[in-house]
Amino acid sequence: MIRGTLYIISAPSGAGKTSLVAALLKARPSLVVSVSHTTRKPREGEVDGEHYHFVNAEQFLGMIEDGAFLEHARVFDHYYGTSRAAVEAELERGLDVILEIDWQGAQQVRRLMPDCQSVFIVPPSRDELRQRLQARGKDSDAIIERRLGEAVKEMSRFGEYDYLVVNDDFDRALADLVAIFTANRLHTRPQRHRHEALIRDLLASGEANP
Amino acid sequence: MIRGTLYIISAPSGAGKTSLVAALLKARPSLVVSVSHTTRKPREGEVDGEHYHFVNAEQFLGMIEDGAFLEHARVFDHYYGTSRAAVEAELERGLDVILEIDWQGAQQVRRLMPDCQSVFIVPPSRDELRQRLQARGKDSDAIIERRLGEAVKEMSRFGEYDYLVVNDDFDRALADLVAIFTANRLHTRPQRHRHEALIRDLLASGEANP
Repeated sequence: MIRGTLYIISAPSGAGKTSLVAALLKARPSLVVSVSHTTRKPREGEVDGEHYHFVNAEQFLGMIEDGAFLEHARVFDHYYGTSRAAVEAELERGLDVILEIDWQGAQQVRRLMPDCQSVFIVPPSRDELRQRLQARGKDSDAIIERRLGEAVKEMSRFGEYDYLVVNDDFDRALADLVAIFTANRLHTRPQRHRHEALIRDLLASGEANP
Repeated sequence: MIRGTLYIISAPSGAGKTSLVAALLKARPSLVVSVSHTTRKPREGEVDGEHYHFVNAEQFLGMIEDGAFLEHARVFDHYYGTSRAAVEAELERGLDVILEIDWQGAQQVRRLMPDCQSVFIVPPSRDELRQRLQARGKDSDAIIERRLGEAVKEMSRFGEYDYLVVNDDFDRALADLVAIFTANRLHTRPQRHRHEALIRDLLASGEANP
């Protein structure tokens, strides 16, 4: 089995990452999104092991001590983290794994998994970003501006990523993501393993053949 | 203008490289194939500057002395080479440039242009390769076997290339090549230049905006 590749996908809120990743998963059956661990309570409709692995704070802190996380963060009162063992198991099954994390998580993952590939998605303009942040509800201007400020902070880290995708047109941005995942599978190292028998056949000395 | 990328595409005779590159050029308008210099005489229908730059031996040897070639080779009585200035001009125009050369030329180019990307194309099986080499004319078994031997020698170098594409199905192999060219354009470095205005817009401090 050829080991899969670990991908980080980051984006500010409003860039369209969630819809793009959902479409990407449909387009590529050899791709999975990592399920995070969290200490927050399940919301209505959330399934343990599907949306998150729900654990309590004691369990989470124990996992941190054991070095069980590729990355983790505390957001207000709750912890979120990506289990290294779960990701490794998927990669060993030959699947590509996506982590949807922010730039801080991305930095932690790159240190532990330097072979990972990282993609940053940006919206097509500042105005469009503001509109998408507004469209989420009837929030005050102050809240919108705070979200915009957070988005700018996140976007300022795009240079740390391997790829930059502009989500100006959904289908084109999706095609761009598919091309990145396809091209990485065509690198000589994985291809050599994938097509081991073919390469042996092609390189057999001429005399050995009828 | 964002500088293009230099691509090397190598393959043994019979792998289908010529048809794939022709289809690739149709699919991607920002792509050109480098026109080689040669000292051999034009064949019927060949146009100077389109199929080759036809020069005499004295001119060619002068160009070698001037370091004008990215790579060159002598095949029987004739010289073939890739002009560095011509390739540089296309790259500076923002075009991706393909060199269709063998493994020896590829080694020369990698030394001078370490940022180039190289792709090796292989046929789907030894039997298929032999059939394609036979189909070219009414050659003797000895000639077919010699060609097969040369193909094996060329293929033994696939590990020196960045990407390996198996031409088992023409459309899939073409899609693979398109993905490689697309993904390389999505690297953060060229994207940062291509979308300079957008990035400035997105990263402007919140206060500066209405």
